[in-house]
Amino acid sequence: MWWSEAEQAALADPATCGMCADADLDENPHSVLIASTSTTHLRLARNQAHPGYCLVILREHVTDLADLDAGALAAFWTDVQRAGRVIGEVLDPRKVDYLVMGHRMPHLHCHLLPQHEDDDPLRNVDISDGPVLLPDEELRARAEALRAVWNR
Amino acid sequence: MWWSEAEQAALADPATCGMCADADLDENPHSVLIASTSTTHLRLARNQAHPGYCLVILREHVTDLADLDAGALAAFWTDVQRAGRVIGEVLDPRKVDYLVMGHRMPHLHCHLLPQHEDDDPLRNVDISDGPVLLPDEELRARAEALRAVWNR
Repeated sequence: MWWSEAEQAALADPATCGMCADADLDENPHSVLIASTSTTHLRLARNQAHPGYCLVILREHVTDLADLDAGALAAFWTDVQRAGRVIGEVLDPRKVDYLVMGHRMPHLHCHLLPQHEDDDPLRNVDISDGPVLLPDEELRARAEALRAVWNR
Repeated sequence: MWWSEAEQAALADPATCGMCADADLDENPHSVLIASTSTTHLRLARNQAHPGYCLVILREHVTDLADLDAGALAAFWTDVQRAGRVIGEVLDPRKVDYLVMGHRMPHLHCHLLPQHEDDDPLRNVDISDGPVLLPDEELRARAEALRAVWNR
């Protein structure tokens, strides 16, 4: 069964939303910041089971893609596309998947899940693969490599 | 292992691309047409394990989101958002997931996978759930209900 209305309301409350609280921090338990725009934050997931796995998180607390106005919709996807291009250049995956879900965290964000040479294209995608947790220095170096291309 | 370069090239060849061949047909083995814009086709999947499961398929043969120019990117997501709003109104899901993958079919498309009251929000999403195949009249009636709201 889906969340009850009360559970859903609690998850979607901006006062207690986890992403509102930590999407802009340099480091949080889930990810490290790569870059920010006026619309989004681009973060590198700590779980690097899929090397280059990133999230683009809307700054504003909007729970659903359907609720964006035209300008915010275009700006969000411009940032997602830019992030996908950066991942492509730095990590050279065979494919990048773009997944907007947010069942547990109803604050609009897109998972950019790279698929690499050793991944099976017929297997269902799963953002919970792993986890593969890099040493801090390695994770930060990967974020810096992505940031360098993002800012170029 | 991912597709070989030769396999990938064959899948991505517009001359043999399955979506180029049938995305505009009223009915094909996978889905039925709901509506078309100058940018996309909106189709209702025959597999209605998730009631309201639709695809938005780019008319043009572009293999990756990263390859769209700014105008096409905005137009694509405008159509996807419109489709998501229509699904929300007609099927009243608790959530719509937006999934851009295309491992088997590298022609840009977005899966709109509704999550309903009886779905588990903690379960990984899977477009291959089911299949639940409706009688033809019921499938066409659902497409017509979506079309009526799309065109309103």
